[in-house]
Amino acid sequence: MSAPVKEQTPPLALTMGDAAGIGPEITIKAWKDRAADRLPAFVLYADADLMRAAARASGLDEAVIVPVPDAATGATIFADALPVLPIPLAEPAKLGQPSVRNGPATISAIRTAVADVAAGRASAVVTNPIAKSVLYGAGFEFPGHTEYLGALAEEFWPGEPSEPVMMLASSELRVVPLTIHVPLKDVPGLLSSDKIIKTARIMAASLRRDFGIERPRIAIAGLNPHAGEDGALGSEDSEIIKPAIDALKAEAHEVSGPHAADTMFHAAARKTYDAALAMYHDQGLIPIKTLSFDEGVNATIGLPFVRTSPDHGTAFGIAGKGVASAASLKAALKLAGEMAARRIHAAAS
Amino acid sequence: MSAPVKEQTPPLALTMGDAAGIGPEITIKAWKDRAADRLPAFVLYADADLMRAAARASGLDEAVIVPVPDAATGATIFADALPVLPIPLAEPAKLGQPSVRNGPATISAIRTAVADVAAGRASAVVTNPIAKSVLYGAGFEFPGHTEYLGALAEEFWPGEPSEPVMMLASSELRVVPLTIHVPLKDVPGLLSSDKIIKTARIMAASLRRDFGIERPRIAIAGLNPHAGEDGALGSEDSEIIKPAIDALKAEAHEVSGPHAADTMFHAAARKTYDAALAMYHDQGLIPIKTLSFDEGVNATIGLPFVRTSPDHGTAFGIAGKGVASAASLKAALKLAGEMAARRIHAAAS
Repeated sequence: MSAPVKEQTPPLALTMGDAAGIGPEITIKAWKDRAADRLPAFVLYADADLMRAAARASGLDEAVIVPVPDAATGATIFADALPVLPIPLAEPAKLGQPSVRNGPATISAIRTAVADVAAGRASAVVTNPIAKSVLYGAGFEFPGHTEYLGALAEEFWPGEPSEPVMMLASSELRVVPLTIHVPLKDVPGLLSSDKIIKTARIMAASLRRDFGIERPRIAIAGLNPHAGEDGALGSEDSEIIKPAIDALKAEAHEVSGPHAADTMFHAAARKTYDAALAMYHDQGLIPIKTLSFDEGVNATIGLPFVRTSPDHGTAFGIAGKGVASAASLKAALKLAGEMAARRIHAAAS
Repeated sequence: MSAPVKEQTPPLALTMGDAAGIGPEITIKAWKDRAADRLPAFVLYADADLMRAAARASGLDEAVIVPVPDAATGATIFADALPVLPIPLAEPAKLGQPSVRNGPATISAIRTAVADVAAGRASAVVTNPIAKSVLYGAGFEFPGHTEYLGALAEEFWPGEPSEPVMMLASSELRVVPLTIHVPLKDVPGLLSSDKIIKTARIMAASLRRDFGIERPRIAIAGLNPHAGEDGALGSEDSEIIKPAIDALKAEAHEVSGPHAADTMFHAAARKTYDAALAMYHDQGLIPIKTLSFDEGVNATIGLPFVRTSPDHGTAFGIAGKGVASAASLKAALKLAGEMAARRIHAAAS
């Protein structure tokens, strides 16, 4: 990374997400708890009036919302105020009712946050949830957040490797699903040794760089029950997954598997690895959401910058009702702070 | 059930399982802890010499192994001795080295135990683990334990409904996988509304009869990520699972779903149902083994008799080493005792 190493770590850049969702509300909750939860300083990329309304709804004086001209200024006031780098909405947000007209502001918040990280003004991006269907209406042409961040990485870090991979992380488990939002019946056909090898390499690099684990141990799940039981319950485990593991071992990666997926996520098993690679969405997300429903974090690894997000959606149904949990956002802020600090430390040393 | 209602509940019939596995060892451990863990009385259907050796290996006097002529006699001595209803092996067992010649004794223990339950001499069957591949060599012609028990049910309870269904149960979760030991790629083609309806009915009947839940609530998982996200991620959720749920509701069953599988197993979600119906092996077994690795119990519901077993295999690799956990066997004994007591109570009232 070529970003200048500053004496003080720059603040995190937190995006507003969909203005009609729970993003504004959980952001206020997180800021309120900044001291008790020892959250790293963050600057919110959002509409200031939106946030003033969210502050009032949370029983705060709207004066806690302070528009700032840049992230560095935001960092200096974070202890006393919620710094907002203004991204104006096209129209006032109605909680629970997403607006296509406000889509460009949602996108602009993400782009501005990434640009600030690229310029060294912010240390990492944390994103509040967006609603893809709303953004499609606003002309957004990416399948989701992650792909958009990949495109921004190529724009702002030209020539640097950018292969975004979704990792779910909590205090209990780190897990990467190899395939994500595809029908289950398509999963077997989407597996390849090459995809497993590339993904495990990205995981190993991130565990070293972002998580400070010198010799990362990666446990790779089988696809079939009991990891195929020597071919009796499916061939992918022996024909696709096993060769990938052998190739990774030949590269001196510390990988194990294919593991029977049902017995690799209990407490004793989790102690034997630093991250798990699951073959499909539910295989990876069932264990982490079962263990850490509220405090799971979505971290995009494989990018030239650090990005995390809470592991939930816009939750339009409860937006503004005061019941949304900020636990996952807080965990996302903490994790981003830790990951960014490790990258900055490594760049400085 | 037409079994006579006795004044005292008959003991459980525990089978030895594969004599070369951990069955003898964990049985001794469970009996040792009978008082502390408040285990119901059980009689072991096994070779007496095998058990004497296991007793000595566990530091007990072999005199604690007492052959009994029938289960009732066993019940009277259970507090002071481990009653063994003799099922002679063909040759002495070598721990960790299963013997095809001893296969018939393994099978005979199961058959004798079921026969005793049918005759009212025992209240339920608890089975130690068997190795199917060893039994195949001995001429065993059933895919597994469960199918054999189904055949025995038809033999000993002619005319009574017998549709064995595997339920995994722990203090955290009860879950039934609709499909079990099949390659993942075959799962979508094996789903049918009819199969879901039949299985949910069996679950509801068992939750009432065996678990004492008057209005059982069953949560049914979707097949695809996010339960198909309205068809965007696969059609089975809307075309196969949803119609089954509608049909079950029309029968006044309290069912819900199709649920996104990743968000239906955390603590708060589990409070909303009494049992979950998963669409495939890992979808159901990942959550229960993640939550309750040591104390999960396999209960076969839908049979005219109660049967449970520990939720693990023969573990030949550690047999006789003294390290095998008896937690799952103890849980299986307790659950069988509870289920049998409810059936006997219902038959008496």
